[in-house]
Amino acid sequence: MKKLINNPDNFVRESLEGMAAAHPELIKIHFDPHFIYRADTPLQNKVAIISGGGSGHEPMHGGFVGMGMLDAACPGEVFTSPTPDQMLEAAKIVNSGAGVLNIVKNYSGDVMNFEMAAELAFSEGIQALNILIDDDIAVKDSLYTQGRRGVGTTILAEKICGAAAQQGYNLKQLADLCRKVNMSGRSMGIALTSCTPPAKGSPIFELGNQEIEVGIGIHGEPGRQRITFTSANEMTEILATSIIEDSAYSRILREWDTQIGEWVEVELTNPPLRTGDSVLAFVNSMGGTPLSELYIVYRQLVKLCEQDGLKIVRNLVGPYITALEMQGCSITLLKMDEELIKLWDAPVKTAALRWGV
Amino acid sequence: MKKLINNPDNFVRESLEGMAAAHPELIKIHFDPHFIYRADTPLQNKVAIISGGGSGHEPMHGGFVGMGMLDAACPGEVFTSPTPDQMLEAAKIVNSGAGVLNIVKNYSGDVMNFEMAAELAFSEGIQALNILIDDDIAVKDSLYTQGRRGVGTTILAEKICGAAAQQGYNLKQLADLCRKVNMSGRSMGIALTSCTPPAKGSPIFELGNQEIEVGIGIHGEPGRQRITFTSANEMTEILATSIIEDSAYSRILREWDTQIGEWVEVELTNPPLRTGDSVLAFVNSMGGTPLSELYIVYRQLVKLCEQDGLKIVRNLVGPYITALEMQGCSITLLKMDEELIKLWDAPVKTAALRWGV
Repeated sequence: MKKLINNPDNFVRESLEGMAAAHPELIKIHFDPHFIYRADTPLQNKVAIISGGGSGHEPMHGGFVGMGMLDAACPGEVFTSPTPDQMLEAAKIVNSGAGVLNIVKNYSGDVMNFEMAAELAFSEGIQALNILIDDDIAVKDSLYTQGRRGVGTTILAEKICGAAAQQGYNLKQLADLCRKVNMSGRSMGIALTSCTPPAKGSPIFELGNQEIEVGIGIHGEPGRQRITFTSANEMTEILATSIIEDSAYSRILREWDTQIGEWVEVELTNPPLRTGDSVLAFVNSMGGTPLSELYIVYRQLVKLCEQDGLKIVRNLVGPYITALEMQGCSITLLKMDEELIKLWDAPVKTAALRWGV
Repeated sequence: MKKLINNPDNFVRESLEGMAAAHPELIKIHFDPHFIYRADTPLQNKVAIISGGGSGHEPMHGGFVGMGMLDAACPGEVFTSPTPDQMLEAAKIVNSGAGVLNIVKNYSGDVMNFEMAAELAFSEGIQALNILIDDDIAVKDSLYTQGRRGVGTTILAEKICGAAAQQGYNLKQLADLCRKVNMSGRSMGIALTSCTPPAKGSPIFELGNQEIEVGIGIHGEPGRQRITFTSANEMTEILATSIIEDSAYSRILREWDTQIGEWVEVELTNPPLRTGDSVLAFVNSMGGTPLSELYIVYRQLVKLCEQDGLKIVRNLVGPYITALEMQGCSITLLKMDEELIKLWDAPVKTAALRWGV
């Protein structure tokens, strides 16, 4: 293992220290427990948006803290859930009184800890509501996860809900919006190589010289199948076709009712994509794949969307939700409407995503 | 070799096609000869800024075409210089009559072809002036290069000169500014792994499991030495100390005199960095190194600059001048003054660098 690290035990902390030094105008970092938060927090009357998850997926989530996106991000150790105390302390700092929306990727550890944090926040008089993102169509039930995993749509939800919070949506409106984004998004990824977490010191899984993992998770969880390495066009087609042809997906998720302080069950359905739909197309690097290759994937994705009558109205191409230095990519298609387009286009000022300001 | 490509022969073209599809509001792409140019070109009375070089370093240069930065970028094949016809045709399209500044990284092929392009442009009545960037302190004379190579400072020069052109600097003022940036910048890089150009299909050099190459070039050119892999702090110190302690560097470069249509020799000197200097600190990924590791490098760089009395007034952290999927990083320190800070902060709207708009 050759990495630009010192002691693996200090990897997350030192990386956060460097990030704090690089972006003092945008963010502050609280240590023990660790969380990144907006330098100008709390913002009066604004619902705060918090996300979090294991480290190793940078820039997600810390790189998305700032105006028009997240108010705070809670990083765990590499590929390990953050803990409830991180989420609670972050909520205390960024809550203006208007409440907190936690955007949570569907991994069992993250879900459990964010649930505990919502309950703790309630007991301290903070309205905190968790909305899950479970957009990875590759597999249902997986290592670490019950149901579908949360991947690329998370970032789109953070951008869109962040803009809405900035524009004055209240907590209930934001929860409705975040749920809508989750029900409009589908993703799938592919790994060409494995990756090596610093503390482990060896690859999290092995892939043969000519093998690729279709439907990979962002922690190296197994996907649908291993196949022989093929062309970019064929790999793009496997991902895009799986997404475009995914049928209606219904499941029951738990949500915290901030009025009564109890968990309630909510049934959600992602309708299938249909000819004529407008979509945001997101081609994401798993970390080690160069931008030049992502554009080759995007090129083919455009053709496939056209063939299926999908209109790409916005796009995002780059390394945004990564798995350390893993080579590979993921594709996310998010069905868009006027509200989502307006919120996507709204100004954002974070370390990793910035426009309009 | 596992990459998201189709036919290696079509790698550059397909990547450009994807890029064009992703950013129609920013750029257009001309094929045969290939160049990327601003969608709103030419801009009346504005000097046009062109750069170019081998592909495989994305987002450089195509990702920097847009408002406040480049007017056009000429991509060669991977790690191969673009040709004079690309540069000439690009100049014809983006020249408003105010002339063209070519920002050229110091590699023999790039220099020769941009020189030929400047002469051809002159014969067609276009004032085109080339300013070289030769900021890589690692070695003098190297594979592909006479003198020092051009690396990280190139991007800073493109941003700064791009802002100045947008603000109305004329061609002579821009040439002076670009020369000043080149005389204010120093860089050095380190490779943890090699990389594989698609057409070659195998790594461009071999590195042992515990070896790193100090002073690597962006095409894998040998650096100063190979050493045993060590900590991020030590690797950062090797790079930063080499840059900070680099003595005055003088050399003679050729420049085109657009008045008389002849080459003239210009002597340039980079003064050494001194206690009290303000700098822009740029930590760049060679492609395959995750952002989290770059922040660990940046953290140590801040400490080393403080120790030496250098004040970091601006920074840039991310993958901007890469060598495909190579793991490693480079550090650039650019001495800043009020003019450079103001131009750095000016709005920029490109695929890879965007703020203020």
